[in-house]
Amino acid sequence: MSLIAQRMSHLGTENAFKLGDDIQRCVDRGMDVIRFNLGAPDFRSAPHLNRVASEALDAGNSGYCDPAGILPFREAVAAHVSRTRGVEVTPGRVVVTPGAKPPIGYTLQTYVDEGDEVIYPSPGFPIYESWVRFARAVPVPLLLSDERDFAFTADDLAELITRRTKVIILCSPSNPTGGVLSREDLAGIAALVRERCRPDVRIYADEIYEHILFDGLEHESIMSHEGMPERTVLASGHSKGFAMTGWRLGWAILPTEEEAGIFKQLNINIMSCVPPFLQEAGAAAYEDPESAVQVEQMVREFERRRDWVVPALNGVPGVRCRLPKGAFYVFPDVSGMCERLGVYDAWARLPAEARGRATPAAILQMFLLYRYGVASMDRASFGRIGAEGQDFLRLSIANSMEDIRRGVERIGEAAEDDGGFAEFADSEDFKGLFG
Amino acid sequence: MSLIAQRMSHLGTENAFKLGDDIQRCVDRGMDVIRFNLGAPDFRSAPHLNRVASEALDAGNSGYCDPAGILPFREAVAAHVSRTRGVEVTPGRVVVTPGAKPPIGYTLQTYVDEGDEVIYPSPGFPIYESWVRFARAVPVPLLLSDERDFAFTADDLAELITRRTKVIILCSPSNPTGGVLSREDLAGIAALVRERCRPDVRIYADEIYEHILFDGLEHESIMSHEGMPERTVLASGHSKGFAMTGWRLGWAILPTEEEAGIFKQLNINIMSCVPPFLQEAGAAAYEDPESAVQVEQMVREFERRRDWVVPALNGVPGVRCRLPKGAFYVFPDVSGMCERLGVYDAWARLPAEARGRATPAAILQMFLLYRYGVASMDRASFGRIGAEGQDFLRLSIANSMEDIRRGVERIGEAAEDDGGFAEFADSEDFKGLFG
Repeated sequence: MSLIAQRMSHLGTENAFKLGDDIQRCVDRGMDVIRFNLGAPDFRSAPHLNRVASEALDAGNSGYCDPAGILPFREAVAAHVSRTRGVEVTPGRVVVTPGAKPPIGYTLQTYVDEGDEVIYPSPGFPIYESWVRFARAVPVPLLLSDERDFAFTADDLAELITRRTKVIILCSPSNPTGGVLSREDLAGIAALVRERCRPDVRIYADEIYEHILFDGLEHESIMSHEGMPERTVLASGHSKGFAMTGWRLGWAILPTEEEAGIFKQLNINIMSCVPPFLQEAGAAAYEDPESAVQVEQMVREFERRRDWVVPALNGVPGVRCRLPKGAFYVFPDVSGMCERLGVYDAWARLPAEARGRATPAAILQMFLLYRYGVASMDRASFGRIGAEGQDFLRLSIANSMEDIRRGVERIGEAAEDDGGFAEFADSEDFKGLFG
Repeated sequence: MSLIAQRMSHLGTENAFKLGDDIQRCVDRGMDVIRFNLGAPDFRSAPHLNRVASEALDAGNSGYCDPAGILPFREAVAAHVSRTRGVEVTPGRVVVTPGAKPPIGYTLQTYVDEGDEVIYPSPGFPIYESWVRFARAVPVPLLLSDERDFAFTADDLAELITRRTKVIILCSPSNPTGGVLSREDLAGIAALVRERCRPDVRIYADEIYEHILFDGLEHESIMSHEGMPERTVLASGHSKGFAMTGWRLGWAILPTEEEAGIFKQLNINIMSCVPPFLQEAGAAAYEDPESAVQVEQMVREFERRRDWVVPALNGVPGVRCRLPKGAFYVFPDVSGMCERLGVYDAWARLPAEARGRATPAAILQMFLLYRYGVASMDRASFGRIGAEGQDFLRLSIANSMEDIRRGVERIGEAAEDDGGFAEFADSEDFKGLFG
């Protein structure tokens, strides 16, 4: 016996939350940090939705509620999904969760036994890999490349499917890449799944960025394809599209009411329910036409920023950045910058053990933060397995245009500062961070 | 491979949430149901706390926050615990969770490997047994009896401690019994743990009913005893004392900051954080003197109801009810009523398989609900293992005095209605419920 159970050694984390300590250290030194690390819109939740929640609270709707979610919210979710995915969904298949994150762990716990294989995108949301490992499943990363705009086809997926495949995770629009699967891509994936997977294999469709699409694209879902409603766990929510990250309002659509009953049972065992007065606002977000207006304004603003930042980043020596089609991130290849600054050499000089933990992109990330006050996320924060040799940073454009301009300017200065990097690589900061 | 993973067969539930379907069926038939089943105060959250949450929301405090909880709330919790338990607690050892329920699963996942033994009170909150089994630990129920006021001593506990004991769960004041551990009881338990348990054994102290005590009693905590702060996970929150069940505001104090880091990591993997604008109100609940006034009024009202309901129940033939010292439940022995009405005979006539699932108290529970419109919870809903032959019902007094009077009157009528019970035992309702 030991203090901490063995299972905990398999649980990963989300560095976006962990980086806060480093940022605080820089702020405490008097630095002005530009937070390109955040995965949250720089917009507040809409006043008309805040008002619904406050009124429901004042009216006393603050007691326990149905652990699956209050019926009006589940009805609103079912109507939203039925309309946007072109399939009929009943409220009995909807389970409300505190944000769109709980359905990840619920899906792994519900469907995956030790040794089953789970395919997930990498780079992708880091909690996928964390839960795959925590559930003692076999992680099978679907490695995405920027040459192909971080999209993939049925052929790529086909190579990974085996008899042991139990869950396939999709995320479109994608965090961190901004890649988007087209209707044709999804049709191909659906055909492959129908052909190669048993009926009890589940697709986990993470569509939390469904509202944030550029260039006039419309959201496409695997749910809209033949045979998929009965195999898909579709998760989304209010965090990104409605700028309600702190509300923790999300939901999952399950293939059957029985499976929804299991997710409800997990809610009962973990946190009982989601605050009903917040769910009232969640329903209003779908039903009040004012919401769509505000979402549209926010998305156009993200698009305007993207249109500025991508060429600007491509003007920085050693940076190569593709145009994302959705979400609010850019995900530039920074290998040229690592090369120019001597990051690879610094990494190669690390003791073997430290080299295993850190990546060159993580070293660049910390140089930008500790010396230039620019916080970003490195590639390995979005899935470690098979990510060797890929040096990217994720920058969130959920920041003011002014901060984005200042941040890119600083990155440009950093790219020319090989002397500064040499100093950093020799500093106490570096030793503290990378040993 | 099968659709649902094997682990799910070990997950239990909380019948208080499941009974809703039966109640709805009765309501749909036009019955007026008195809800003695609910574990939630019949008071609304206080207007001064609602206002804090609404103002924080309007001020834009609605984004992601520290997954461990916002610092002002953790500071308020640490100050509250330091003051009331007489030990020094720092905010770094506090983790905020959506209600006081998540720490149960977090504790089992963090500390308990397959085969480790977990001691927990039975009758007790059903989620203990559910998580013990879900974590593949060995459940070791500490069976409480009404003869001893549902309390227990170090000697009782001593009989259950072995080399494999890893976690000991305590709950005082207790749901469902209303039993309370005295300072002397806790001193004895602390001495036993110091003597018999390795330092890495953890006490899980569920003190969610800490504010609800009668007869002038003050809350006592295992944390206040020598050697216990470094071994105790103390969980509590706002649901019961501040009548904020639907807010999902709870917290745990961990023995070390490292262990708090693990709970934070579980938050990150499951739901990211608790809404920060709700946490602002959570801090105000401890800091605004108005809260204590409102808590005191509510507790005095619960005490007034207890003082009426216990003698009233003892006046019902076949019911024997002890005086609870805290929480807002009464937990009468209804074996005499089962005997009088022929419930034991009906149970004995069930097929073996159905007899294994149902208990006589559960049959009485359903008779009271389906024929008299009185919803209650049966003994087996608070831990099944080792509960055979114990026929109790839990009735919540978080109802208006008028409803309590009407409910007890109905129970009195039911106790004389052996003809009605015979009809029920022969009905379609009975077959549908118990097969």
